[in-house]
Amino acid sequence: MGPVPAVAAIRLAVRQTLKDHQPGDLVLVACSGGADSLALACAAAFVAPRMGLRCGAVTVDHGLQDGSGRRADEVVRLLRQRGLAPVESVAVVVGREGGPEAAARTARYQALDHCAERLDAKSVLLGHTRDDQAETVLLGLARGSGARSLAGMPARFGPGDRYRRPLLEKARSVTEEACMAEGVVPWRDPHNADPAYTRSRIRHWLLPAIHEALGPGMPEALARTARMLREDTEALDQWAASALEDCRHAQGGLDTARLAGLPTAVRRRVIRLAALGSGAPAGTLAAVHIEAVDALVTNWRGQGPLHLPGPVVVHRADGRLAFGERTLDGLDAVTTRSGQHPCAATPV
Amino acid sequence: MGPVPAVAAIRLAVRQTLKDHQPGDLVLVACSGGADSLALACAAAFVAPRMGLRCGAVTVDHGLQDGSGRRADEVVRLLRQRGLAPVESVAVVVGREGGPEAAARTARYQALDHCAERLDAKSVLLGHTRDDQAETVLLGLARGSGARSLAGMPARFGPGDRYRRPLLEKARSVTEEACMAEGVVPWRDPHNADPAYTRSRIRHWLLPAIHEALGPGMPEALARTARMLREDTEALDQWAASALEDCRHAQGGLDTARLAGLPTAVRRRVIRLAALGSGAPAGTLAAVHIEAVDALVTNWRGQGPLHLPGPVVVHRADGRLAFGERTLDGLDAVTTRSGQHPCAATPV
Repeated sequence: MGPVPAVAAIRLAVRQTLKDHQPGDLVLVACSGGADSLALACAAAFVAPRMGLRCGAVTVDHGLQDGSGRRADEVVRLLRQRGLAPVESVAVVVGREGGPEAAARTARYQALDHCAERLDAKSVLLGHTRDDQAETVLLGLARGSGARSLAGMPARFGPGDRYRRPLLEKARSVTEEACMAEGVVPWRDPHNADPAYTRSRIRHWLLPAIHEALGPGMPEALARTARMLREDTEALDQWAASALEDCRHAQGGLDTARLAGLPTAVRRRVIRLAALGSGAPAGTLAAVHIEAVDALVTNWRGQGPLHLPGPVVVHRADGRLAFGERTLDGLDAVTTRSGQHPCAATPV
Repeated sequence: MGPVPAVAAIRLAVRQTLKDHQPGDLVLVACSGGADSLALACAAAFVAPRMGLRCGAVTVDHGLQDGSGRRADEVVRLLRQRGLAPVESVAVVVGREGGPEAAARTARYQALDHCAERLDAKSVLLGHTRDDQAETVLLGLARGSGARSLAGMPARFGPGDRYRRPLLEKARSVTEEACMAEGVVPWRDPHNADPAYTRSRIRHWLLPAIHEALGPGMPEALARTARMLREDTEALDQWAASALEDCRHAQGGLDTARLAGLPTAVRRRVIRLAALGSGAPAGTLAAVHIEAVDALVTNWRGQGPLHLPGPVVVHRADGRLAFGERTLDGLDAVTTRSGQHPCAATPV
């Protein structure tokens, strides 16, 4: 008798994600102890040795709740019992930048990166499911910043596609069934039910309302939308990168006539790339900034220079759009350059 | 003392939308008698004569509710009192194709087209607001068919941009305030509160839950997302149209090697264009069909011919993807052609 369908489906997804690994390679599972990553760890523990791979795990203790260290120890013990090795618990200090969820994510990925490098792991598997993807798309929708934020989580990312999400097309309920069949009891993160977090409001208030209003197919539709928008974004980013080179003016900056000939979606992406290249930080560069710069191209009435985060100053002169840094002497136009801005702390 | 802010905002939006009109031109308002289109009609009646334009209106009687003819007569009388001329009531017969909402829409636009041509109107104004746009984006999200369905309603469309939506960036509440200030009582369509309609479930169940979970900025974020995705779609459609020409094979059909070199989002749009050009109907050609054809390019294992709606048959041979019609003799490959398929009634 084979495994129950939920267990079989997760094992198959893990096998497919590890196809490019070589015998002896180490794969790590990032495991919180929740149903998603626990089901993933059990499947990887089964699949990896049969592919000649080693399978370990890391659990990150964010130190945000009482007893989180004790819980991390329990996850480590459980995973070792299931045959994973090495299994490590890493405690991180969560900062405050970008809000509590973003800060926890930053700390978590730094710890995982560090672990993967130290242990020379070929890949790190993440347990995000189709339901997490649906929540992420809805979060992106609330930001209203276009395809980039609606494209959700990629199936793979990082150097050499280190991070992989084999369960991104599976329902969360499948991971719960798999845990039950595997005889492991998942941990329920109380944060997931705390309405102080946008993601938990989406999970507990919004997704049920969506189910009621639009029927049961929504997580799948959202995940499919995310995949298609990710493909759109990749194509448009490719176009913008090549258009940026075409638009460079011999005297520096960008040629406004050539910019004006591009479709709006591409022109605004070129402007975004130029602003990032001049030191504007991606996190604070918003659609409203890009649209203001775009107006220098498409709605030119002799406007003055624009101040973007960074601080980056953009001005138009002689058919050129010049991206520069603000200097103490005034507004010296500097041609597009790459790298981090040296005086990001000075507000304009 | 000037008008209240809601009235002033709507008048300004109408004035901007009519900027390209010439003195003497006729503008028609499509008016259901609801708050949105009633506020729009009142604003147009004020603005148009001051721009040297004539302003009329059309109300469409869908005949779907008891007393709809009497209500249409009341709308006509009210609009004539406000100085609009000509004001016409047009009764339509709603079919069944595509469901009740799509069938009503088809009948309505046919009637509006006919009226605009008969009266030689330069434009037809539609009262859709930012809230309608948000609902449309959510409907597109439920379909899960990517940027095209998420891009919502365009601000202008039709021959010579005949149809225009000046209120697409205004909140519905603004039109209600304007009606109150103008002293007109809008009609409340009981269909709008009937949970049998997906749109009314979105309006009355889902949008309040979204407000609760994500805060009050959502309609604006959804409208902004729609605008950005519309721009993305336009750029990618432009790329796909030119890539389609580049990919045409000298012996007919599409060159699979050149197709394979395109980004996924562009390649799939090229395939969609080729399928439409071979007679597949846009309404029934789904993402799943396009992905199956795409696998003939990117995952070629000697698959047999594929049957798309139309019926259109696609097969790969000698590095070419041939789009043809199914004939009684068998599967004769026919090169891409435009126009409607002659035997759309024959199921494959």
